[in-house]
Amino acid sequence: MTARYTIGIDLGGTNIKGGVCDRRQTLLTRHAIETQAELGCEHVLERMARLVDDLLQQTNLSKAQIAGIGVGAPGPLSHAQGMIYHAPNLPGFVAVPLRDRFAKATGLPVVLENDANAAAYGEFTAGAGKDVRNMVMLTLGTGIGGGIVLDGKLWRGRYDNAGEIGHTVIVPDGRACPCGQRGCLERYASANAIAERLREAVAAGENSVLKPKITANEPFDARDVLQAAEQGDALAARIWDETCYYLALSVVNVRHLLNPELVVFAGGLINAGPRLLDPVKEHLERLSWKIAPDAPRIALATLGTDAGTIGAAALAMS
Amino acid sequence: MTARYTIGIDLGGTNIKGGVCDRRQTLLTRHAIETQAELGCEHVLERMARLVDDLLQQTNLSKAQIAGIGVGAPGPLSHAQGMIYHAPNLPGFVAVPLRDRFAKATGLPVVLENDANAAAYGEFTAGAGKDVRNMVMLTLGTGIGGGIVLDGKLWRGRYDNAGEIGHTVIVPDGRACPCGQRGCLERYASANAIAERLREAVAAGENSVLKPKITANEPFDARDVLQAAEQGDALAARIWDETCYYLALSVVNVRHLLNPELVVFAGGLINAGPRLLDPVKEHLERLSWKIAPDAPRIALATLGTDAGTIGAAALAMS
Repeated sequence: MTARYTIGIDLGGTNIKGGVCDRRQTLLTRHAIETQAELGCEHVLERMARLVDDLLQQTNLSKAQIAGIGVGAPGPLSHAQGMIYHAPNLPGFVAVPLRDRFAKATGLPVVLENDANAAAYGEFTAGAGKDVRNMVMLTLGTGIGGGIVLDGKLWRGRYDNAGEIGHTVIVPDGRACPCGQRGCLERYASANAIAERLREAVAAGENSVLKPKITANEPFDARDVLQAAEQGDALAARIWDETCYYLALSVVNVRHLLNPELVVFAGGLINAGPRLLDPVKEHLERLSWKIAPDAPRIALATLGTDAGTIGAAALAMS
Repeated sequence: MTARYTIGIDLGGTNIKGGVCDRRQTLLTRHAIETQAELGCEHVLERMARLVDDLLQQTNLSKAQIAGIGVGAPGPLSHAQGMIYHAPNLPGFVAVPLRDRFAKATGLPVVLENDANAAAYGEFTAGAGKDVRNMVMLTLGTGIGGGIVLDGKLWRGRYDNAGEIGHTVIVPDGRACPCGQRGCLERYASANAIAERLREAVAAGENSVLKPKITANEPFDARDVLQAAEQGDALAARIWDETCYYLALSVVNVRHLLNPELVVFAGGLINAGPRLLDPVKEHLERLSWKIAPDAPRIALATLGTDAGTIGAAALAMS
């Protein structure tokens, strides 16, 4: 019986998602359980092992048929050492040698990868990037994660920290970022930053249909900003457009540094579809050079929340 | 008789430099002749062939002992197709299949490479980067060129146009660049940009010891700006410091995207030595995150004007 399947696990602060893939990166089944992160590291490792058992049951596979497990986890972490240095959303995950401990617990080979890298690799193997060799992905969510695939391989860098596009500086001495820098892309174009920039503009005296919510301290998010923009709210429209402008600037820089044929946007923000993609393309047209025909194609991710699971499974195969 | 040597050629608008290297990238001899670019493409190709003959004579080597020739040339060009698309400093060099024509002229295999890439590869094989696997080089001259070495190989990108760090946008909607974009690094931190920014500040009413030269329309360059800064000229000091600040911002972005262990500065500007390197490092300390110990080392190139020749020769070997 040859091991022709792999398991991908996407370890998040709220849920642990998992799936079984075949050699073609087809997701045969998926399953998710609560992380119960507040119960600590040991407990989360047990939850992950239970998820593996659940997946084997669902698929009627035995461990002997599984070539390995890929785990996408929040970081910073070291792929090479299989170690999570520190995961702010997972209490107790400080200097955890997750790869070796989970391998011991399951009896299977384990690969540990940064969750943004795993998602990028998923889109590369089975999603928006399946027909290219070079791809850069920006995951636009609460923050901005990134992943780089060059010549078919995940580029991790010397310190397993490449692809942190959210922390490239897009505005010199710009908005303060919790990372300690100023002007990071994440502080302008993440879902959180969109809501925050609107809130600040209103606090500074600008008007918006969202002002009553803000005054009443009611929650609102990037979706509300987009909706307000579409209903003619000038401030919301400006902030949404600026977001697309900053994303376009990042694409210009990725283009000149890495010259990939494809840039993929992923994450919650891409639910906006063409309302995100079209203005980004318009800004790009204006912002980037015409002297060489080396513009990357821009596309939206296609795998949704399965990207991390599929990518982790694919990494376990390679 | 095995072919254990290669020839490197650095084709410039004024001079054609050449050298012979052994398998360890030791430069056995070097020679330069005038390009005589104004006499056109055919003539320049003949000059290149003559340089090869000169080098063989100098070293007492026969063509049978030469494994190949590497040519570093201004672009844009295609390494894969061996084609110079357009070299503004070389009249008549439009869509020239240089690799195949020069191979025919010399009877030797030829590799064509972008000159900034060739120089970066030279520093990687035999200079500042000889002990690392991942390196990004910025060549600070009239403009700003770049070269990227990842896992020991030159990263050219999908369209042979990677490493154009000089045209990453460092100031959104900043200074206009001849490339068609705004805010390119090259418009802030190249030798030309330094002199130009000082000239503009004086024209806008600021004072400087260089003002008489500017008023008299006398030429001056980045060296004069540095000298004036050291003599206590406040405007010159500010412009020099801003230059180092913008270079540091670029290093931050290279760090987060590619995570190399080394960033090398090359080109005329590095004659300033620690007066360039120290303030760049100070700005970096302030500008970049401390949450992960993944800062690249910063160093100055060591091969001077030989880097392009050695790099081209090394590329002919690989």
